[in-house]
Amino acid sequence: MEQEFASILLESAVTELSRLPGVGRKTALRLALHILRQDESVGVALGEAIINMRRGVKYCSECHNISETEVCPICSSPARDKSTVCVVESVKDVMIFENTRQYRGLYHVLGGVISPMDGIGPDQLQIASLVERVKSGEINEVILALSATMEGETTNFYIYRQLGTLPVKITQLARGVSVGNEIEYTDEITLGRSLINRTLFADSFNNNR
Amino acid sequence: MEQEFASILLESAVTELSRLPGVGRKTALRLALHILRQDESVGVALGEAIINMRRGVKYCSECHNISETEVCPICSSPARDKSTVCVVESVKDVMIFENTRQYRGLYHVLGGVISPMDGIGPDQLQIASLVERVKSGEINEVILALSATMEGETTNFYIYRQLGTLPVKITQLARGVSVGNEIEYTDEITLGRSLINRTLFADSFNNNR
Repeated sequence: MEQEFASILLESAVTELSRLPGVGRKTALRLALHILRQDESVGVALGEAIINMRRGVKYCSECHNISETEVCPICSSPARDKSTVCVVESVKDVMIFENTRQYRGLYHVLGGVISPMDGIGPDQLQIASLVERVKSGEINEVILALSATMEGETTNFYIYRQLGTLPVKITQLARGVSVGNEIEYTDEITLGRSLINRTLFADSFNNNR
Repeated sequence: MEQEFASILLESAVTELSRLPGVGRKTALRLALHILRQDESVGVALGEAIINMRRGVKYCSECHNISETEVCPICSSPARDKSTVCVVESVKDVMIFENTRQYRGLYHVLGGVISPMDGIGPDQLQIASLVERVKSGEINEVILALSATMEGETTNFYIYRQLGTLPVKITQLARGVSVGNEIEYTDEITLGRSLINRTLFADSFNNNR
């Protein structure tokens, strides 16, 4: 779409906005014109919030979660169980697990999963630093909490091999029927796994208390 | 959706992004995490482009189109026909008409249409300044180019009444079958109008040259 803009400032804002995922030039123009219609303070606050975030947000030197400090609030909290580390793909997954309020251990953010198709090998991920953390000795259990996809399973297995000789328990998220899902619409592999790993019925309501 | 953020900077960027139209908190978080994954310069460029646009873009004192100067490039261009003014709803409509490359006159941006349902009366629109422009005497024709909606037609009629006593030709966009549309799917009112305002067939290919 060729567009003649009355303003170079507008044009460059549209260009930058259209770099966002899922935002084409048409949407970018709509967003820019919306910002122009609002009070000046609204647009300036948006711009400054983006700059401050990009400049100020760092990554925790321990778990690689985003942090404004050298070590993130989770890693430095005395209330967290430092003997358990949950391995996740991304910063967003940390938020998702935190929202469950079921986990009081630490995290380790890999920054992705092994995916030869996308050119992502183990070296681009924070796997070596995970091995170092486990070697440091404080950790008793590593929970593999990656996606139940081919790439996630491959990464799980790679980490399992890397940690193999170290004295640490390696677990993974339970596979089973999603809460709220009907059996009819659950795939056979998941059903098979959920049969093999069936749990005591009494435990299900004990755990929920 | 309650979310625990590891960073206040991230949280405030998400809050500001979610003020954009069509962007909820989930999308805002996705955009913010995308910005964090990119090079620092990309995020800073986006933030600065938004701030510079919001601070730098003004409105033309003549036609109320966006402009970086007191009078916009269209109004100040010696190549434009200053005897014709096309009345449009918004800045975006100016871009749309400019893209047709069929118009060499000036514009007048109303900033909306009369809409009692949304509390927009004539006083919130640039109608008085349009009357002033016409009174100044240089203008021979006012083209009403508002949407063919109830609100657009109401606004057309209001402007027609305001300009009624002034020596100026008032025209409106032709109503008819959209180019590329099938007769079967064209509404009856449009078909009726297109019959009444039928044009010489020979003119259609003369105009296109």
